[in-house]
Amino acid sequence: MVDGQTNNLMFNGEKAAGAVGDVAGSPEVVLRSDFSVDLVTCSATDMDVVRAARVSTVGSDSLLEEKGKDYCTGLINYMIRNRHGSPFEHNLLTFYVEAPIFTVRHLMRHRMWSFNEESARYRQLYPVFYLPDSERALRQEGKPGEYRYLAGTSEDHRLVRRQVVPAYRTAWSAYTAMLGAGVSREIARTVLPSGIYTSLYATCNARALMHFLSLRTRSEEAKFPSYPQYEIDRVARQMEQAWSARMPITHLAFDLHGRVAP
Amino acid sequence: MVDGQTNNLMFNGEKAAGAVGDVAGSPEVVLRSDFSVDLVTCSATDMDVVRAARVSTVGSDSLLEEKGKDYCTGLINYMIRNRHGSPFEHNLLTFYVEAPIFTVRHLMRHRMWSFNEESARYRQLYPVFYLPDSERALRQEGKPGEYRYLAGTSEDHRLVRRQVVPAYRTAWSAYTAMLGAGVSREIARTVLPSGIYTSLYATCNARALMHFLSLRTRSEEAKFPSYPQYEIDRVARQMEQAWSARMPITHLAFDLHGRVAP
Amino acid sequence: MVDGQTNNLMFNGEKAAGAVGDVAGSPEVVLRSDFSVDLVTCSATDMDVVRAARVSTVGSDSLLEEKGKDYCTGLINYMIRNRHGSPFEHNLLTFYVEAPIFTVRHLMRHRMWSFNEESARYRQLYPVFYLPDSERALRQEGKPGEYRYLAGTSEDHRLVRRQVVPAYRTAWSAYTAMLGAGVSREIARTVLPSGIYTSLYATCNARALMHFLSLRTRSEEAKFPSYPQYEIDRVARQMEQAWSARMPITHLAFDLHGRVAP
Amino acid sequence: MVDGQTNNLMFNGEKAAGAVGDVAGSPEVVLRSDFSVDLVTCSATDMDVVRAARVSTVGSDSLLEEKGKDYCTGLINYMIRNRHGSPFEHNLLTFYVEAPIFTVRHLMRHRMWSFNEESARYRQLYPVFYLPDSERALRQEGKPGEYRYLAGTSEDHRLVRRQVVPAYRTAWSAYTAMLGAGVSREIARTVLPSGIYTSLYATCNARALMHFLSLRTRSEEAKFPSYPQYEIDRVARQMEQAWSARMPITHLAFDLHGRVAP
Repeated sequence: MVDGQTNNLMFNGEKAAGAVGDVAGSPEVVLRSDFSVDLVTCSATDMDVVRAARVSTVGSDSLLEEKGKDYCTGLINYMIRNRHGSPFEHNLLTFYVEAPIFTVRHLMRHRMWSFNEESARYRQLYPVFYLPDSERALRQEGKPGEYRYLAGTSEDHRLVRRQVVPAYRTAWSAYTAMLGAGVSREIARTVLPSGIYTSLYATCNARALMHFLSLRTRSEEAKFPSYPQYEIDRVARQMEQAWSARMPITHLAFDLHGRVAP
Repeated sequence: MVDGQTNNLMFNGEKAAGAVGDVAGSPEVVLRSDFSVDLVTCSATDMDVVRAARVSTVGSDSLLEEKGKDYCTGLINYMIRNRHGSPFEHNLLTFYVEAPIFTVRHLMRHRMWSFNEESARYRQLYPVFYLPDSERALRQEGKPGEYRYLAGTSEDHRLVRRQVVPAYRTAWSAYTAMLGAGVSREIARTVLPSGIYTSLYATCNARALMHFLSLRTRSEEAKFPSYPQYEIDRVARQMEQAWSARMPITHLAFDLHGRVAP
Repeated sequence: MVDGQTNNLMFNGEKAAGAVGDVAGSPEVVLRSDFSVDLVTCSATDMDVVRAARVSTVGSDSLLEEKGKDYCTGLINYMIRNRHGSPFEHNLLTFYVEAPIFTVRHLMRHRMWSFNEESARYRQLYPVFYLPDSERALRQEGKPGEYRYLAGTSEDHRLVRRQVVPAYRTAWSAYTAMLGAGVSREIARTVLPSGIYTSLYATCNARALMHFLSLRTRSEEAKFPSYPQYEIDRVARQMEQAWSARMPITHLAFDLHGRVAP
Repeated sequence: MVDGQTNNLMFNGEKAAGAVGDVAGSPEVVLRSDFSVDLVTCSATDMDVVRAARVSTVGSDSLLEEKGKDYCTGLINYMIRNRHGSPFEHNLLTFYVEAPIFTVRHLMRHRMWSFNEESARYRQLYPVFYLPDSERALRQEGKPGEYRYLAGTSEDHRLVRRQVVPAYRTAWSAYTAMLGAGVSREIARTVLPSGIYTSLYATCNARALMHFLSLRTRSEEAKFPSYPQYEIDRVARQMEQAWSARMPITHLAFDLHGRVAP
């Protein structure tokens, strides 16, 4: 199972542009800097929102009427601006995600979502671990909740790599040693770091997604600024991009009105 | 707007087999005994469940693997029986419903669902009201929570009709008189009875639907018997039928294992 | 059971300042214009919020530390302004409410709350009905979602009373006639209007309450204006008043920062 | 901050009977085998349940009536058996918990709860790590979802200790080295294992707690057997014990009727 090939280790290995590659002399530890976000199921259109909203004023006619793009744009913008949220719930987006555990923990705080994750009780994990890429700021200033981030120097990045790779290796080695001796997976995993990758399905509707985006992306346009960690922000942006193609009017309205979930 | 034609009054008027027809001498009051339940959007298959469940043991392979019907049946039955509920959440069913307000109130107790309903503040309602049909038991015995129902005689049904029709007419007349005098809809509606029909979109996933069905259908097979009111039971059964065609393995497993939501 | 005495009909009858009194010649119909909102259980302090928030930066020390009012005020304002909502969830408020069904329906849209309501299946209801008092505007202008309300004239109020009282009486009479003939309560109640009073327990936490207040009160201070119906606004204001005495710092911060739920 | 004294490291250090003590020659790594569960706020009585249930049949009288223990026991058992769940929601329990991250992840799957957790972005963590004690079975047999656990030999326990301690040490050393070099906490924590302790507040009501207990405790009495991991089972049992003292009738009914959440 453990063969050092990123491609075989996780589904999106082949597009892991950020993957740093495996570690010389220790083939079993694979480093990765990117996040997989695939929209695997989607039943979500702007018209779903319009229809659900129209039932309040036209009842059953909402099923039949055809409304032009201008009308839909006006109505959706009105609802976003005035925070009429329920019409944005009659739709579904299911994402398949690969990310480190510490990032997945941010995602799984969102209780309006549904999740199923790879289990370290039920299977042996893969030795794929997170390493910040060169764009990832490594230093921070300021107080909790309002950090400013500073790019690390090349030396900083080398330092991080010098520290995390041996720690990952030691953890992986302890993990496989315990498994080899017959210790159960659920015990052996206690040494695995929060930087190890996991995979999961995450399902939400557009309202829950907007709430998530308002908290987990950092944006100049946001009426209520948020300071999410870089990694969850990158996961969130990929979700936002996939979603915006499906519900372009809703997405534009969300952005235009300060990225406040209705 | 008010023309006494069921067909024009609500979307499903034409298939209202149970509709008693309008009331002689008072064309504006329409009586109806049936409930409309249309599955207008659906993204729900048994394979969605299997894939979400499989991520726990095979991670990304869950995206690619093909599993036969026997395997899926076994896995889904295992999860229903052992109450592993989360894999049943990655799907969507949106129903368009027409039912009396007292029945919609039962439906809207379910907080895992999403709703948008016709608004008596934003529009003038239609004069369509509920009348129990001849199959509806009119009497009950026993204590709250465990009623036994007894069919009414023809005389009972005539009595009910003799009482409800004038009450509906008086209410409707007071409603339109107030509207005619310029009183706002949101005030005028205070006289409208809970038997008046309303329309709404109701969205859920299969897990929430099973929870709803376990409480709002009456069944000999149920491990935990429930005693819902007849009208919500009929709405629920229509939902169950539409759903069972989309997720037949899940539906069969739910039924087989005592109709307990996982 | 039916004796025309407001005092015996519902718990808060004796303080029903707005009650119009019973109707001459028809003692069984009681009119009422007020809403009962009693905070019957409360476990909610500003310190609960501070402690829950502090765990993120000081862990177990949050259990022991004493923080002055200035510190708490600063921290709570920071969290409200930046929409850190979860620390406002570790508390409880249970209200006992008496209001007309159409108002309770507004309240019960809020899915983060818990409810238990008087049942028209399990008991015979009381003949207590809603009549707008003289302060209640009776006319409205403008489009859905942004109504302007206009006070009714005395003649308007007389008109409403002239219409609703006979409708209530007819409904009540049909209800009791059916009950008298042995028809089950759950059928007989179909004629009862949405203006009849019901009673319930409604439980929430401060975060859910702020969300509710942001949508169900009308306020010049609101960053996102809302246009709730007058009756639910009055219920909401009574809840807000009771809550503000228990969590004064949180309430002030909510009001100061535009009444946006964190 | 790092002084090797369990007592100073986390609140419940002094009662950590299971703590193995610090590791010779490496004072900064502390091993711990127990879990802290303190009920820090509680507003929950059996009478809260009875009152909320009684509103359905007696309305406002529910506020005033006194019911004896036999009556309450009968009613609560009836509701548990027939799965009338909503009356069990009008109460609050807030627990302060210290447990390893992998266990807290099990707890935080429960979406009806409210959580605030110590943040590895906002503070430097303590070097307190999980080590299974001698009672913890280390081996497992059987397929996922139905494991049988086998006690480990003394040699097994020595093996686990021999593997985890160096892995913890290496991780902690990499963590502090990165912090010392100015790398942000949120990056440095990527090497910390899921066996590190975290602390949090967790709030629920009795209904959500029963649902949690039905899934996260293992019991012969359970109508639907569950196979939770040992560590979350121990956390759950401590919660159950604290809760049972506050709502003894509800707890007994839950246990008596197969530990199925209503």
